Amino acid sequence: MWKKRTAVAENVYIADTPSFVTEKQAKIAIDYGGIPGDLHFGLTKKAGAREPMYKRGTEIFNRRQISIVSVEECLEIAGRLNIPAVLPEWLGANIALSGLPDLTSLREGSRIVFPSGAYSVERG
Amino acid sequence: MWKKRTAVAENVYIADTPSFVTEKQAKIAIDYGGIPGDLHFGLTKKAGAREPMYKRGTEIFNRRQISIVSVEECLEIAGRLNIPAVLPEWLGANIALSGLPDLTSLREGSRIVFPSGAYSVERG
Repeated sequence: MWKKRTAVAENVYIADTPSFVTEKQAKIAIDYGGIPGDLHFGLTKKAGAREPMYKRGTEIFNRRQISIVSVEECLEIAGRLNIPAVLPEWLGANIALSGLPDLTSLREGSRIVFPSGAYSVERG
Repeated sequence: MWKKRTAVAENVYIADTPSFVTEKQAKIAIDYGGIPGDLHFGLTKKAGAREPMYKRGTEIFNRRQISIVSVEECLEIAGRLNIPAVLPEWLGANIALSGLPDLTSLREGSRIVFPSGAYSVERG
């Protein structure tokens, strides 16, 4: 049911200001809450407009510690929009991968395991 | 894409011994690590046979804090096995729900929100 595939982390980014937009970094650290220092870091968060099933402000589990985009999909979007590029930074990405041109179609629950042993689980 | 449905928690259970089998309780408490006192409680766990993508013993995020089964599916399984019942306890269930006869077909990422405000996210 699950398939093993290989991808390359081309670039890593963090949002270290209140802006959603991220900035390229030489490297990032990852722990259970995400990337220390990043806007979306945390094991928990306050429920907001994206979680209408909870009263706003309720402490809930953070399902968006890290945002990962596909270099190929960014190129495809740019092509469709007829603009030179869609930068991962503009999407608030923390990691830009190549090798998974169908990243956004991966099944929820898919895991990305990095050589360091760090990993990420797709939560949609 | 997501649908809202209603179910009833018929019974709750914990495994408070090293055995996988659970026992019926009058009530359970739930926090981010699962059910305090339960065998599967914890924000993290050691990787084992179910997580072959990690070296055995590596500390990883716990994706199985709580196990939920459907009363209707237990009945269906019992019928197919031609036995009187399949008890949720035997499956190590922590919560038995009625009203979701297709519980095991729910999409990963589905949320169960309880009247108390507690919730659970399906991680497959």
